[in-house]
Amino acid sequence: MVYKLLSRLDLPRDLKKLSLRQEEELCAEIRAKIIETVSKNGGHLSSNLGVVELSVAIHKVFDSPKDKIIFDVGHQSYAHKLLTGRFKSFDTLRKKGGISGFTRPSESVHDACVSGHSSNSISVALGIAEAMKLSGDNHHAIAVIGDGALTGGLAFEGLNNAGRSGTNIIVILNYNEMSISKNIGGIATYLSELRTQDSYKKLKSGAKKFLSSIPVIGGGIKNAISASKDSIKEMLLHSTIFEDFGFEFIGPVDGHNLEKLEAALRSAKSVNGPVLIQVNTVKGKGYVPAEENPGEYHGVSSFDIDSGDKPQSGDTYTDIFGRELARIATADERIVAITAAMKYGTGLNHFKGSLKPRLFDVGIAEEHAVSFAAGLASMGKLPVFSVYSSFLQRSYDELIHDISIDGLHAVITVCNAGIVGEDGETHQGLYDIPFLTTIPNVTIYSPASAAELKMCLNKALYEDGGLVCIRLPKGGEPEDPFPPTVNYSYKATGSDTLIVTYGRISEAARSASDKLGCDLLRLTRIYPLQPEAIEIMKSHRRVYVFEECSRSGSLGEKIKAEVPQAECRAIEGFIPAMTQCEALELYGLTEEKIVETVRGENGSAT
Amino acid sequence: MVYKLLSRLDLPRDLKKLSLRQEEELCAEIRAKIIETVSKNGGHLSSNLGVVELSVAIHKVFDSPKDKIIFDVGHQSYAHKLLTGRFKSFDTLRKKGGISGFTRPSESVHDACVSGHSSNSISVALGIAEAMKLSGDNHHAIAVIGDGALTGGLAFEGLNNAGRSGTNIIVILNYNEMSISKNIGGIATYLSELRTQDSYKKLKSGAKKFLSSIPVIGGGIKNAISASKDSIKEMLLHSTIFEDFGFEFIGPVDGHNLEKLEAALRSAKSVNGPVLIQVNTVKGKGYVPAEENPGEYHGVSSFDIDSGDKPQSGDTYTDIFGRELARIATADERIVAITAAMKYGTGLNHFKGSLKPRLFDVGIAEEHAVSFAAGLASMGKLPVFSVYSSFLQRSYDELIHDISIDGLHAVITVCNAGIVGEDGETHQGLYDIPFLTTIPNVTIYSPASAAELKMCLNKALYEDGGLVCIRLPKGGEPEDPFPPTVNYSYKATGSDTLIVTYGRISEAARSASDKLGCDLLRLTRIYPLQPEAIEIMKSHRRVYVFEECSRSGSLGEKIKAEVPQAECRAIEGFIPAMTQCEALELYGLTEEKIVETVRGENGSAT
Repeated sequence: MVYKLLSRLDLPRDLKKLSLRQEEELCAEIRAKIIETVSKNGGHLSSNLGVVELSVAIHKVFDSPKDKIIFDVGHQSYAHKLLTGRFKSFDTLRKKGGISGFTRPSESVHDACVSGHSSNSISVALGIAEAMKLSGDNHHAIAVIGDGALTGGLAFEGLNNAGRSGTNIIVILNYNEMSISKNIGGIATYLSELRTQDSYKKLKSGAKKFLSSIPVIGGGIKNAISASKDSIKEMLLHSTIFEDFGFEFIGPVDGHNLEKLEAALRSAKSVNGPVLIQVNTVKGKGYVPAEENPGEYHGVSSFDIDSGDKPQSGDTYTDIFGRELARIATADERIVAITAAMKYGTGLNHFKGSLKPRLFDVGIAEEHAVSFAAGLASMGKLPVFSVYSSFLQRSYDELIHDISIDGLHAVITVCNAGIVGEDGETHQGLYDIPFLTTIPNVTIYSPASAAELKMCLNKALYEDGGLVCIRLPKGGEPEDPFPPTVNYSYKATGSDTLIVTYGRISEAARSASDKLGCDLLRLTRIYPLQPEAIEIMKSHRRVYVFEECSRSGSLGEKIKAEVPQAECRAIEGFIPAMTQCEALELYGLTEEKIVETVRGENGSAT
Repeated sequence: MVYKLLSRLDLPRDLKKLSLRQEEELCAEIRAKIIETVSKNGGHLSSNLGVVELSVAIHKVFDSPKDKIIFDVGHQSYAHKLLTGRFKSFDTLRKKGGISGFTRPSESVHDACVSGHSSNSISVALGIAEAMKLSGDNHHAIAVIGDGALTGGLAFEGLNNAGRSGTNIIVILNYNEMSISKNIGGIATYLSELRTQDSYKKLKSGAKKFLSSIPVIGGGIKNAISASKDSIKEMLLHSTIFEDFGFEFIGPVDGHNLEKLEAALRSAKSVNGPVLIQVNTVKGKGYVPAEENPGEYHGVSSFDIDSGDKPQSGDTYTDIFGRELARIATADERIVAITAAMKYGTGLNHFKGSLKPRLFDVGIAEEHAVSFAAGLASMGKLPVFSVYSSFLQRSYDELIHDISIDGLHAVITVCNAGIVGEDGETHQGLYDIPFLTTIPNVTIYSPASAAELKMCLNKALYEDGGLVCIRLPKGGEPEDPFPPTVNYSYKATGSDTLIVTYGRISEAARSASDKLGCDLLRLTRIYPLQPEAIEIMKSHRRVYVFEECSRSGSLGEKIKAEVPQAECRAIEGFIPAMTQCEALELYGLTEEKIVETVRGENGSAT
């Protein structure tokens, strides 16, 4: 495709000069560019195709970067990126050194904040709006948030604080009836009812007109009726949740009609105080396979544009976990599975059929998921919460307060543990070991094969007590899996050098140890540290620990406190987007790099 | 006072036999017992006096422990405790080995879960209710939550999931217009409007009647009017936020009228599905000083019952911090202060007068507080969030995602850091060092005097970058403060033994080192570890680290990774209620215990 407008315009500045017709052409080019790039690089498709017109309208009506646009989660910021000077570099999307799949202030002045996790946009926008107000700056802070992200408690905290703030905050509710999985819960039903009303505004004004048209006839009855009329009028003023929170409400607006979108945004801009605009959009808009299956095209690797076909991949750890849990749950009614709006990403799509009543999708609500699990556990159920490592960070307090203090038994599968690749800084699973190990009495496993994962899951459910976590890296088991164990496996060669590791990089460590002719200690139960494993380490003169984990609080740090000769290789700082292989290479966790480190060719590991 | 009923009845069983008149007498006894005990032992007063009738009514209508009662925060569970077999042991409230000031399942089968932190009750209750539903158990799960706790996002996640659950969950909204500080935000205003309506139910039925009474006259106009009437009826069905979420709504009910309370609870019990009852109560009800000043009597130490007088105490660290921040902020307009509904507990009550527009009380919303601070920081403001250590656990993800990845500059004062005393397990500040040190590029100070606190605050604001945390223990500076430093202070005596410590216990460590004739290294900037400090440690043959910190992830663990000879004394497991002195003694952190440990009389420290 020839990108006539995108390649020639100086955006966002030139957008102001475009006619509606030209804007529509621009939207078509943006859509084509997104589909073309995502089909090659992978990334988020459905969400980005849904907000093309909305992004154009925002940049047309507002003046970025003076007005600040905050995209919740940020996985719908591709059109925004193309509209803010990143067309030429867009082919590098999600590649090493390239354009991030989320907003990053380090990338552009038009990216107001780091995004990646859900539901924080209203809070960040309010911080910006209050700063503007304090500084006498009349620009706007605009949060763009989907109905999925609205199920997160943080979004509610933001709404609660923003509604009565008197700032120039505009919340755009991008309503597309669909987060990653189907939305559940009161707010989803509520919004869907709001959506089905032909036009909420029309209804409201119709109701008001109707009330004024009722004749009021004299006497005692007059006052009664008049009072009731006032009450109803009062109720109409509070007829959406958002008005209850103190927002002026505009909408619902057709999110694919540029003219209507711009009119609504101009109207919001003219209001003095917080405004919420509901914009109805279609996920995947303009690409038939994605419109028909928005969930499947939420986050994709590469695919064929014409057919929509995606490359088949083998079983992932989450698949293996999901099927094993389903198998166990069929025989054990106490098992209950919990997902925070990600049953596909966390293996719980296998919890189906007769098991469905025991699968709870709680929305993007990781805090609730853990407190809810505590309630279930206190009644003798066996809750299993399956969640991405980086999103479990939201549950830290509840893990201590609701689960650990009372010694309740709950199992957490920590998916995408370790390096995740193209999603970059915000999605790396590098902190779960550091923060989970701060919780008294936690047990953590890091299986390195399908068989081992099954063993760990069974042990976690039926032998261990308290909080038990099982780490699952992105991807599937290695070609030549280790014989399974729930403790550790030790390959002794008589060498005085020992490599210690766990999880995905065990395979690289094994090859390296073969090459080096040194000993290998692979941990499956990684925490609490096993005394026998520590003894093995102590018996070696040189000990090298390799792990996919942030340095401070890493397992290596804990090992080094007991085994002073240990040299530890962990991750320092944040890892931006690059492939998992590139990151493993960069941080010295490939076979070759491990060999170099042990040979002393890489400088000291610690 | 003679407790005629409390001392003789077998509660909660005998409650079923009491007449309304006797229940009222029982309420008077409960109030007297609470006032008497709290005046001696300290504890929560206002919140407990507010729910005496409500607690009696719940136990009258429901059947604990088969029905499960979950008190949000749990600081209003004293009446519940007196009603469930704990009258005789109530004098031990908040004492070592005694009755906890919060609910603890280990204490009674009537305490359904651990409480202490806010806003989790609906989620825990829903877990219990879903477990009941899965097991075919028709009992109820009852969450009692204040309007303050409702400002926490976790409560919203609970409401969102509970409303459409079809379970027997009953949420009792204890509306008293007052959390610890005054409630702010949309939901507070909304509820206060709901409260001022004479009777919401009456209003609603009145409006319905009014609508039916309107004559509909033939022709085209008939359909239009009829459609409008339907729309209004539809809106009336959704006329509280709670109904929008899918709850049946009952109330508001007078929370001090036993008859009405019991009727409302019976009515809730008969509903098949989720119900929310709004109960209006008066904080401090029945004790005039507390009714007049509920905030001051929220959490108290001992006081004189007749006069209401409380013992005066000297300046606390939070006072010193608050005044210093106010002084700095008067000269620097960039400074913005943030509290999560605790401006008194965190020193920000000193941020007043002309500074008020720059003080933000965000409600019990620690997640929002941090994301909001990120927005402010991104606009060049200097946000300072002052919060209890144990409540900052809620912000873990936002500290990484919103502040740290982008390298934003924000200061956090971590109040109640270390051992807190009588509030017990849920309130100990033992995890902040373990979890904050997992965040890349964080700086942590632990000042040990007023002057040092001021130096650290100024350095944090004007010299350091990124996320900077200053730990403040409960209480004030020692009698003989150390000369202030932002780095470390080292007392060398030529000994080969070194004591390393930081914060409050520095004084005890100093006396111990004097007695032992050994060296002392006191850290002010505790993280990142200072290379010079590490060198001092390495130069000693025997190194003892003492700290008020949970063991796993403690500073000692990090020190030991670099200084193998270090022996570390930290806290293992959870600390129940006892005085700070008792806890320091128990965990070997008093002068005498430090001497014993260094002399080897206590066994190994690690």
